[in-house]
Amino acid sequence: MKNLHISYLLDVYGPVLTDKQRDVVGLYYCEDLSLAEIAEICGITRQGVRDSIKRGEAVIVELEEKLGIVKKLQNIYDATDTIRNNSRDILIYNDRSVYSEQIKKLAESILEQSNLIDEE
Amino acid sequence: MKNLHISYLLDVYGPVLTDKQRDVVGLYYCEDLSLAEIAEICGITRQGVRDSIKRGEAVIVELEEKLGIVKKLQNIYDATDTIRNNSRDILIYNDRSVYSEQIKKLAESILEQSNLIDEE
Repeated sequence: MKNLHISYLLDVYGPVLTDKQRDVVGLYYCEDLSLAEIAEICGITRQGVRDSIKRGEAVIVELEEKLGIVKKLQNIYDATDTIRNNSRDILIYNDRSVYSEQIKKLAESILEQSNLIDEE
Repeated sequence: MKNLHISYLLDVYGPVLTDKQRDVVGLYYCEDLSLAEIAEICGITRQGVRDSIKRGEAVIVELEEKLGIVKKLQNIYDATDTIRNNSRDILIYNDRSVYSEQIKKLAESILEQSNLIDEE
């Protein structure tokens, strides 16, 4: 079982890697290809693929240890999930019982904003 | 007028700098000290301070150009501001007119979650 966490790190920190490192780390961790398959696709040796993955992985793991952005973003997306669910519940509850146009608009705007956060 | 943007970059990317770079960039951009003052505090030459600021600044500016995390977080905090204001307005409006205990609890939870996001 490959490490899913590396895919998240690659999403955030991928642009600091070389093109080759980013490609092989992505093919290995996100596309779940084997070293042999990646070697064939990229036209390099299996050992070359392994070395490039190790180097790229080390760079993004170290960046996360220092900066913690992936952890921070995961906490933000978790909080945003709760916000989204609560705003939907407000809309449902408001529709069913206390109907208020003003509360509806405010809750809809919260829902929109929580979708904006998820697109970040 | 020094560049306020650098303070934000330092908040996010500071940990990748050397201790000396982080110190001098912080003293210059966040504490607003002069090169001469920083030179005296750190016991290095004014030119040494200038070089160290330039190198540190280049590292965090390049990281932001590649990763765009400061921009992403600013967009998230902007959306969170709107969410916080809207949840407060729901609470006020709910208190004043349609009073519903359930809407109150949901809006309070949204307010809490938006504070959690700001602490990230």
